[in-house]
Amino acid sequence: MKKSLGAKTLLYPTPVLVIGSYDADGRPNVMTAAWGGIACSRPPCVCVSLRAATASHGNIVSRKAFTISLPSRGQAAEADYFGLVSGRNADKFAATGLTPVAAELVDAPYVAEFPLVVECEVIQVHELGLHTQFIGEIKDVKIDEGCLDASGHIDVRTLDPVAFAPEAEGYFALGAPIGPAFSIGKIFVATTTS
Amino acid sequence: MKKSLGAKTLLYPTPVLVIGSYDADGRPNVMTAAWGGIACSRPPCVCVSLRAATASHGNIVSRKAFTISLPSRGQAAEADYFGLVSGRNADKFAATGLTPVAAELVDAPYVAEFPLVVECEVIQVHELGLHTQFIGEIKDVKIDEGCLDASGHIDVRTLDPVAFAPEAEGYFALGAPIGPAFSIGKIFVATTTS
Repeated sequence: MKKSLGAKTLLYPTPVLVIGSYDADGRPNVMTAAWGGIACSRPPCVCVSLRAATASHGNIVSRKAFTISLPSRGQAAEADYFGLVSGRNADKFAATGLTPVAAELVDAPYVAEFPLVVECEVIQVHELGLHTQFIGEIKDVKIDEGCLDASGHIDVRTLDPVAFAPEAEGYFALGAPIGPAFSIGKIFVATTTS
Repeated sequence: MKKSLGAKTLLYPTPVLVIGSYDADGRPNVMTAAWGGIACSRPPCVCVSLRAATASHGNIVSRKAFTISLPSRGQAAEADYFGLVSGRNADKFAATGLTPVAAELVDAPYVAEFPLVVECEVIQVHELGLHTQFIGEIKDVKIDEGCLDASGHIDVRTLDPVAFAPEAEGYFALGAPIGPAFSIGKIFVATTTS
């Protein structure tokens, strides 16, 4: 039996996206957003939604660029902090001891210590209501070499990304593998064609 | 040391969104998408990106509505199957033995057996390239009563949602809790104000 919870923003899991941008004076800022994801395969795009009240929103409108730095499990507290305070009132890099690095291909900084970085150029902006959605074309993805296995594939166990569960207990690690995509569902294809 | 992987759609984790829609004859269809997430808090909105070639894309353009049904770990194979074949060639509900139910508030079906359902009305459509992004205003969220704890909060362990890891090993369960959001980062606020 299902129970109605009303019109709420509930979806599981959401990512923990640390959004990097420069302000008008070139100072690096980061904030954490869970409202976003991949938006297109060609061109490769992400989307991320920010409130207009945030410092990052103004930065991204001006610079038309941002980065996404993905924290590992051991960096979840830093990522949580990035969502707690405004870059107008705090130097979040100084407070956490993390290092801003200029992205190679876009006009935005990323977090050196976080294992995966996505460099994005804004190609569309959509006003949805409280949040503005930025569509960023992915110009490059950079990953810590230690998160690649011997054959150059991403080792998601070493990457150890963080998931967010809205209105539940908060942040979670990835857990047990369930099975390969585009594969475990084939048992039902056999059923329909036999 | 970071290694460049090029312009690729890499973000961890992504959700496993089973999108429900009706075709022109009112037949229910479902497909699985990992490109999407929450897009706005007020009005509450989700976004999901689909290729124009899919049957679901045409259905959603016509009906201006869709649902998202979230599978639990034990339903990952069914969700994977929903992404393997087209609704033009298969009755995916019949193949999996799952049950389509008409949403209460929007013109789309959902998967009765999946524990969490989001009913969405399309309010914006964005052409991004290979994918079209649909912005759906959330009209209601429904959850299996067994996924609520005694005080009515979502029990994410019982919900047991599925995460997808692009270009990695596939589907994963949620793992160890890391800590509460808007809380574990406060250690850095103390550092900056003391």
